[in-house]
Amino acid sequence: MKKQNTLKIRFLGGVGEVGKNMTAFEYGNDIIVVDAGLSFPTEEMPGVDLLIPDTTYLEENKNKIKGYIITHGHEDHIGALSYVLKDVNAPVFGTRLTLTLIENKLKEHRLNSVSLNSIRAGSSIKLGCFNIEFINVNHSIAGAVALAITTPVGVVFHTGDFKIDYTPVAGEYTDLARISELGKKGVLLMLSESTNVEREGYTVSETVVGETLDKVFNANLDKRLIIATFASNVHRLQQILDLAVKYKRKVAFSGRSMVNVVESAKRIGELYVADNLIIDIDKIKNYRQEQIVVISTGTQGEPMSALTRMATGEFNKVVVGAGDTVIMSSSVIPGNEKMIYNVINNLYKKGADVLYETLEPIHVSGHACREELKIILSLVKPKFFIPVHGEYRHLKKHARLATTLGVNENNILIPEIGSTVELSSKSMKFGEPFKAGTRLVDGIEIDGSDSVVLRDRIHISEDGIMVVVVCKDMLTGQLVSTEIINKGIVIGDDTLTELSSLLSKSLDGVDLHLDDGITAKNHIRRSLKNYVFKKTKKNPMILPIIMEV
Amino acid sequence: MKKQNTLKIRFLGGVGEVGKNMTAFEYGNDIIVVDAGLSFPTEEMPGVDLLIPDTTYLEENKNKIKGYIITHGHEDHIGALSYVLKDVNAPVFGTRLTLTLIENKLKEHRLNSVSLNSIRAGSSIKLGCFNIEFINVNHSIAGAVALAITTPVGVVFHTGDFKIDYTPVAGEYTDLARISELGKKGVLLMLSESTNVEREGYTVSETVVGETLDKVFNANLDKRLIIATFASNVHRLQQILDLAVKYKRKVAFSGRSMVNVVESAKRIGELYVADNLIIDIDKIKNYRQEQIVVISTGTQGEPMSALTRMATGEFNKVVVGAGDTVIMSSSVIPGNEKMIYNVINNLYKKGADVLYETLEPIHVSGHACREELKIILSLVKPKFFIPVHGEYRHLKKHARLATTLGVNENNILIPEIGSTVELSSKSMKFGEPFKAGTRLVDGIEIDGSDSVVLRDRIHISEDGIMVVVVCKDMLTGQLVSTEIINKGIVIGDDTLTELSSLLSKSLDGVDLHLDDGITAKNHIRRSLKNYVFKKTKKNPMILPIIMEV
Repeated sequence: MKKQNTLKIRFLGGVGEVGKNMTAFEYGNDIIVVDAGLSFPTEEMPGVDLLIPDTTYLEENKNKIKGYIITHGHEDHIGALSYVLKDVNAPVFGTRLTLTLIENKLKEHRLNSVSLNSIRAGSSIKLGCFNIEFINVNHSIAGAVALAITTPVGVVFHTGDFKIDYTPVAGEYTDLARISELGKKGVLLMLSESTNVEREGYTVSETVVGETLDKVFNANLDKRLIIATFASNVHRLQQILDLAVKYKRKVAFSGRSMVNVVESAKRIGELYVADNLIIDIDKIKNYRQEQIVVISTGTQGEPMSALTRMATGEFNKVVVGAGDTVIMSSSVIPGNEKMIYNVINNLYKKGADVLYETLEPIHVSGHACREELKIILSLVKPKFFIPVHGEYRHLKKHARLATTLGVNENNILIPEIGSTVELSSKSMKFGEPFKAGTRLVDGIEIDGSDSVVLRDRIHISEDGIMVVVVCKDMLTGQLVSTEIINKGIVIGDDTLTELSSLLSKSLDGVDLHLDDGITAKNHIRRSLKNYVFKKTKKNPMILPIIMEV
Repeated sequence: MKKQNTLKIRFLGGVGEVGKNMTAFEYGNDIIVVDAGLSFPTEEMPGVDLLIPDTTYLEENKNKIKGYIITHGHEDHIGALSYVLKDVNAPVFGTRLTLTLIENKLKEHRLNSVSLNSIRAGSSIKLGCFNIEFINVNHSIAGAVALAITTPVGVVFHTGDFKIDYTPVAGEYTDLARISELGKKGVLLMLSESTNVEREGYTVSETVVGETLDKVFNANLDKRLIIATFASNVHRLQQILDLAVKYKRKVAFSGRSMVNVVESAKRIGELYVADNLIIDIDKIKNYRQEQIVVISTGTQGEPMSALTRMATGEFNKVVVGAGDTVIMSSSVIPGNEKMIYNVINNLYKKGADVLYETLEPIHVSGHACREELKIILSLVKPKFFIPVHGEYRHLKKHARLATTLGVNENNILIPEIGSTVELSSKSMKFGEPFKAGTRLVDGIEIDGSDSVVLRDRIHISEDGIMVVVVCKDMLTGQLVSTEIINKGIVIGDDTLTELSSLLSKSLDGVDLHLDDGITAKNHIRRSLKNYVFKKTKKNPMILPIIMEV
């Protein structure tokens, strides 16, 4: 039974990449899964909606799975749940706001048979041989927790996503007292998030955003305010609502996810909404501009979002003009720069003033910067360390940071997706890797083996497609007629005529009847390819179709 | 002849966008064109190589064009020349390095009949009714100039791209003395670049980069150094070469554009290369790692660049490992983040150390920040002001900045592409807009009217294409055979079988003979569309082809 003396930590996502966080802890016949997030596709994946972890390993070990522990309600931690639960159903544990956000998602996916279990920071649960304690942390969403997992080999501390905000908007700050206590008793392994390891110093407190917004309200007493922010940042919303009360404005929400989150957060008491504060977006025309705050989604310039449509004048509920000040109370997610600045440019063109990325913080990060990472490392004093949640460069830098704080270099591992880490009370090493990777959700779910579909899409999107239909007589094998049709190619009529004659000439005397199809198709491709490239400097996909008539 | 009393300034590019800079100054029968740049396509333009200004207006006024004045040799100022000169040939004027870079491009395009005229900062030329004086400015490329254009209505000052570097690496700093003099005599209109109007303070001097690099050389005495930088930043190259001499290292260049620029800059004396300093990249294996500096292209993570291939281990001339320190002495051009960080992650995985975006500057901007823009506005004291080179948000902020420095709000215009500004000694106003816009270079050149080609590419790249071939009997009009072929769609065999039978059923009894083709095609699309969406949650392009046999 020696084999059972190690804890196996399996990385299904969130290491060597940003997003799609998912880690499984396995001991004997017990598995618990921490987080089940999604990430968004890159440019090399046209048409793909989102990415989730490949959970083959979990499917193959269904019976062992005792539950999903969710650290907080951001998409990169909950977004894959609806997909994963379809294959591997198990109880889900999280704080109230987290569960509320998960519930909204499960409804969309019509998943009714999932057991959702609300936990509180400060409490513990037992799942198989694991005891999981939930520890309050600050983050850019309410109800975020870190985890102290007591396993048969020792205590594993998982930070989740966190920052240390000594002046949070609501609730407690990151429970440093409890974390110190754990550190004193001895933590065997820490997994700590690495998002902001490249940023020196400390993250700014969420309260400071409130102070800046107060100044903005005060400087724009005669303007309508339109504030774009992330729906899930409930504390940001609370600060805006409080300012609306202070400055005697009504609040209208715009965007479905905003309305949903506000509804849910209010219901569970995470958001306090004063009486008569909220009005329907259709009613704003009944008020003067200086009496209104619109809170909107669309911080990333999403094409269909309310803010984007306001900027182009296509959103007739909110017509933007010189009487408006728009505040982008959000960060720029890398890759979205062009879309966001498009929206900003269009808002300026409509005459509005736009505040974004100013010297004063109208947005702050939810992730610990270097000094905060150092505090946690110093308090927890883990024997072993694994940096998580980041690209390789982040993990590498976080590993280096840990060594400067006394973690032995040999006691640090940088895993990748599919890595198994074997942990005993005395040692940590890589075990056998397991099947893991990325599943693409593309309308219906598809998996990695369909990379040929993506290759075809990219090929056609860059060079276009030329469909060549050839009809042959079923009896004689002789050519009856041909047609060439192009999509996504710039090609002159002369070139097309020439291609038709090239095609006929090249098929002249070829007995299509005896052919298996493959040879004739290659023949057609070859006969057209060079001429097409010469005339267009492109290599479109040539798709021959041979019809028997 | 009253009409001739205004100067017409025509904006062909570079306003309301970044890149593709091109402005024409027209008075009576004389036109001069300042710059002819390109820009790079956005994600919405798959397969497009580059973008250049639509120069229909210049083609229609060929006879008036007296010359092209090029402020410096960056792509966004020279990149369109090779295309534009094919249609509208006229003499080109620029400093030596600028002309050398243009010459390389013209060679690639086999343009031999272009008149290239070298000018010096401090000198003037006369073209038609215009007198153009070239004024030295600092920028991230050597040989950059601003222009003082004396026109019949008054003096127009065009900053080009500039910064104020009091400690430049070579040559003089921005000629503030001459600029003040012009300001005292009276400048009617200033056009000033707006790139960094959102950045407070001053740009850091290029010399500071040298100091940082010196520290890096000193801290990595036992390592091989690989420095990625922009080939055209000759002063950066000079500093690296000087450090190589100081630290007794040999220099090897990697990347075709790097080799070309070094060759050209050396030839015209812009780059001083010590004897026996340079070795061929193939020879680096004859030296110990600490004796080598490799200077490489590939700062933007371009897939085929030397640095990207080093990072993936595909470049066998430079095998990267734990003995290497890689320095990214470059900025991240928005949109390239993912590619660049991919390269950095891969370099780390190979064991190399990577320096990028550290606290100490290993790269500085070539564009004036707010305080520098203020200096120029204060010295030039123009009566009229037009902010150029920037997105709308930049131009808007630069316009506001100008008002705080005493330019009358009514004397400022923000043009867009296709705007004509009419300037007399007393007034400035918008005139009739002219035909302008963007031409897409896509293998062969195409123009804006082919947007349907781009729409098709994007549609297919996101949803795939379904080709439906239907053969009908020429005489009876009856269906003979059908075939459905998919590319870029994830679809099950069952669904395909069902689609075939749906198709046959829907065509049953339809007299294809009497049909003009359009109706039948729409009929085919309609009959398949809903079922395809139901099964795939996608709307592929359905391309019916009806063959008569």
